[in-house]
Amino acid sequence: MDQDKLKLFEPGEKVGIVMVVTGQGKGKTTSALGIALRAVGYDMKVCIIEFIKGDMYSGEIDGIKRLSPNVELHLTGKGFCGIMEDPYPFSEHRANAQDALKLAKEKLFSGNFDILILDEINNALRLKLVDLPQILELIDNKPPLIHLILTGRDAHPEVIKRAHTVTEMKEIKHAYRLGIEPQKGIDY
Amino acid sequence: MDQDKLKLFEPGEKVGIVMVVTGQGKGKTTSALGIALRAVGYDMKVCIIEFIKGDMYSGEIDGIKRLSPNVELHLTGKGFCGIMEDPYPFSEHRANAQDALKLAKEKLFSGNFDILILDEINNALRLKLVDLPQILELIDNKPPLIHLILTGRDAHPEVIKRAHTVTEMKEIKHAYRLGIEPQKGIDY
Repeated sequence: MDQDKLKLFEPGEKVGIVMVVTGQGKGKTTSALGIALRAVGYDMKVCIIEFIKGDMYSGEIDGIKRLSPNVELHLTGKGFCGIMEDPYPFSEHRANAQDALKLAKEKLFSGNFDILILDEINNALRLKLVDLPQILELIDNKPPLIHLILTGRDAHPEVIKRAHTVTEMKEIKHAYRLGIEPQKGIDY
Repeated sequence: MDQDKLKLFEPGEKVGIVMVVTGQGKGKTTSALGIALRAVGYDMKVCIIEFIKGDMYSGEIDGIKRLSPNVELHLTGKGFCGIMEDPYPFSEHRANAQDALKLAKEKLFSGNFDILILDEINNALRLKLVDLPQILELIDNKPPLIHLILTGRDAHPEVIKRAHTVTEMKEIKHAYRLGIEPQKGIDY
């Protein structure tokens, strides 16, 4: 179909959505990336702050460069916390996450973004790298029109309570359980 | 962290993954878009064929243009089938979906793509626009290294059986249940 024949929907009222993407299944960060890609189609501005990932290369780093200057990505983590021969003490992970939170607040109130994605912030909370009141403060005081997306397993019930839209990604099957290693472009 | 200090993982064996993204929750097409964005970071080539959507504008149409020529998008549908004052007869929807399937086969075997995304093909099957043996034939005969992603609600058990990775997106909450209309960049 010709693009100029497509119908364009306009909501009667603009609402800044609070969205939570949680669960054990694959696709949480990935769907946040998809939101960023789609938003670029409307020339919206998106800021993504990744709280946990950080020492492994992932394709999104260079993929997002193609969406510059609409989308900016900040890797704030030192990599997986507490697992896989983690060389960093807890205090350092926490200090990092606290810096990420400061950055999040700055971006949230900057007026420069339509969407702020706090990737794996739910995990950061579970790992006690950030505190629940800190996250609730962000949600409760956000500018009304900015969309705020919080991803990561084990979203806190108080965060879910404040969200408009919550999807749980449930793992039905995963290739690694068949002994297949993570694949480029699919898993990272 | 500096990008050049990031660790790059390489799987010992490359496997063309069959992935299914299903369920009622928000994020199925969105996560397929995220996969495309990430894959572009590795300079991979992605083809997306949307089976159902087609008469409504969605931001991904222009978002994906930013990823050209790595990602190509084909809108093959005539819009929602059988609901919301659908002006088209079933036979026309079916003919469209059959054309889309032909296109899918052509792209799958073209050697031009690392990832083929058949968006909402699960819905097309449930609506009888395509037949189960047609989908299984694609899966069973695909070139070994291409990743094949099938999205849409109500994935057929035979499709799930053949997939390496299956995520079900479960709706916990959705803004529209609060009376909030779909929002640009978030819902479409």
